[in-house]
Amino acid sequence: MVKGRKVDNVAYERLVNLGRETLQEINSDTSPSFYAPVRSRSNVSFSEDTGTLVLGDKKEKRTFVHVSQAKKFMQTIAIAAKLKKFLEEGLHTSIRGLFYQLKFSLGEDLDEELFSEQSESNPLIEDLEASLDLKREDFNLSTDRKGVVAGNMIIKDRFGGEENTIDASKQGRSGWMIPSDVDNDMEFVDVNADYVLVVEKDALWQRLNEDKFWKKNNCILITPKGQASRGTRRLIRKLADMKLPVYVFTDCDAWGWYIYWAIKTGSMNLAYLTKHLATPEARFIGVTMSDINEYDFLNKLTIKAKDVDIKRAEEMKSYPWISRHKEWVEELDIVLKTKKKLEQDAL
Amino acid sequence: MVKGRKVDNVAYERLVNLGRETLQEINSDTSPSFYAPVRSRSNVSFSEDTGTLVLGDKKEKRTFVHVSQAKKFMQTIAIAAKLKKFLEEGLHTSIRGLFYQLKFSLGEDLDEELFSEQSESNPLIEDLEASLDLKREDFNLSTDRKGVVAGNMIIKDRFGGEENTIDASKQGRSGWMIPSDVDNDMEFVDVNADYVLVVEKDALWQRLNEDKFWKKNNCILITPKGQASRGTRRLIRKLADMKLPVYVFTDCDAWGWYIYWAIKTGSMNLAYLTKHLATPEARFIGVTMSDINEYDFLNKLTIKAKDVDIKRAEEMKSYPWISRHKEWVEELDIVLKTKKKLEQDAL
Repeated sequence: MVKGRKVDNVAYERLVNLGRETLQEINSDTSPSFYAPVRSRSNVSFSEDTGTLVLGDKKEKRTFVHVSQAKKFMQTIAIAAKLKKFLEEGLHTSIRGLFYQLKFSLGEDLDEELFSEQSESNPLIEDLEASLDLKREDFNLSTDRKGVVAGNMIIKDRFGGEENTIDASKQGRSGWMIPSDVDNDMEFVDVNADYVLVVEKDALWQRLNEDKFWKKNNCILITPKGQASRGTRRLIRKLADMKLPVYVFTDCDAWGWYIYWAIKTGSMNLAYLTKHLATPEARFIGVTMSDINEYDFLNKLTIKAKDVDIKRAEEMKSYPWISRHKEWVEELDIVLKTKKKLEQDAL
Repeated sequence: MVKGRKVDNVAYERLVNLGRETLQEINSDTSPSFYAPVRSRSNVSFSEDTGTLVLGDKKEKRTFVHVSQAKKFMQTIAIAAKLKKFLEEGLHTSIRGLFYQLKFSLGEDLDEELFSEQSESNPLIEDLEASLDLKREDFNLSTDRKGVVAGNMIIKDRFGGEENTIDASKQGRSGWMIPSDVDNDMEFVDVNADYVLVVEKDALWQRLNEDKFWKKNNCILITPKGQASRGTRRLIRKLADMKLPVYVFTDCDAWGWYIYWAIKTGSMNLAYLTKHLATPEARFIGVTMSDINEYDFLNKLTIKAKDVDIKRAEEMKSYPWISRHKEWVEELDIVLKTKKKLEQDAL
């Protein structure tokens, strides 16, 4: 194997350490193993301290000399080795690209494939993220991107060894497309705003961008275009770290509220990453069901809730970190009773 | 009604003419009416001349003094009046926003709404687009945007009376997000490239962008991120008008091929707009099913086709403008027989 260039970052260090420990265990005749936090729902809870979903202490030992674990262990090490190579080469791929690159890595002569489906490799990537306490983006894995931003914000993007300065106040009708990774080889050199406004829908974003809302109100205007991507959540987290208040404005329906909650407390599937992705400081703004009950002109703007809204409302009521907020339970109950919704486009 | 500023563009002129003709008919005691091309599939065919889907000659008369048409006629005129107002004010909204703005426009005192559902207003907007021979974007209606571009291309965006110069070669990892409208208040001041490469998936776009493929090969690199939005199709059409050859690279599956065909010949639902949106000059590149049959290393990279791929393959075989291409029918037959696919991520 050709040795790549040494990379000076935490992700690289942790991968090298994982390899080193594995080697030491082999050399000392121990079955190599590592611990990965359990990511199933039974190990997810709400933390009062952080105000986010977090993983509990349950860990699983993954060991090589074990009938049911040997293959998984080998697969995980193969992924870790590949990620190390990506960092050395300074190249990125998606988790699907990684799957294809490793699928046949056992060589042409073997009938066996390392992975037959992507559903085998994806959870092992999550194991590595969770056990090394980093995001896949830090290992040069790109994720689906969605979401746009405009505002007084200057970013230096040193992607692929070339530096570009992006001024998010000069992107016209388009805005700056929020990338998959807003951390590595990227610097927020100047953010000049009083707060962050996140609006659920792109149509509203376009409307507010046209009104130069972000300029007149000195804010950073973001739309996740529905459920927020990892990159968008991470950007919101970073802006909150810069002490900007974050307001999330969604449709008045359970679907929209869930978008708010996922930004605020993180989502169940990504509970192992809330430290990087969740923004517990985020506050909700928008019309509520109680407003609709109170003001007839709002009631007139409602339309019938969709089945997904009803289902989402039921789910949300079952989440303890939501159901302990009396005012949110009331809102969800009104959704379930009236089966109405009010979209932000109506306002 | 307050008279807005006069607007100097074709869309405005055509709306004003529509209003003028309607008034003349009323003044001469005739029932006001207009003709809209029939947009149903029975009136859609493939044109050898243009190489695209086109609407046939069938037109429907919409008239006011007619029991079943009076409401629709009134609704259409209300939409046209609203669009005229948008152009006068220089403001944009989505078709959903338009629906909400008109829903209650009959006034507070009436129990009747102008529209009760968006499914009532949408087809009338299409009627206006088709009968006035313009796109809704020309009437300040914004559409869903999706798709990204990078390359040697400089655009002046005069959105909302403010001019920004966008250099699509200096957008770093993000690229320039293709807007809903790439025509109005926008100028392509410099496009310096040998060809246009459209890649189906964003993950591949990100990979090629990282490799600076567009710079090394002097091309414009676009991803529609799946099925192409109207804005992306329009941009491809405009680049083809600048005499750039267009190549479309998709997954080897019916879903990907349909993305190519929709860019090339237009889609059934938007057949009335192919003049603006379709690029018959587009050529397909990518792995074919025949390649897979021929080369074992490609066969190894295949995965099981999804149900949507199979269904799409059957549909495509039933389209005369596709089924007359023997080589495409063969490809579709192989999909239906082997139920395999090969994603571009695998290459």
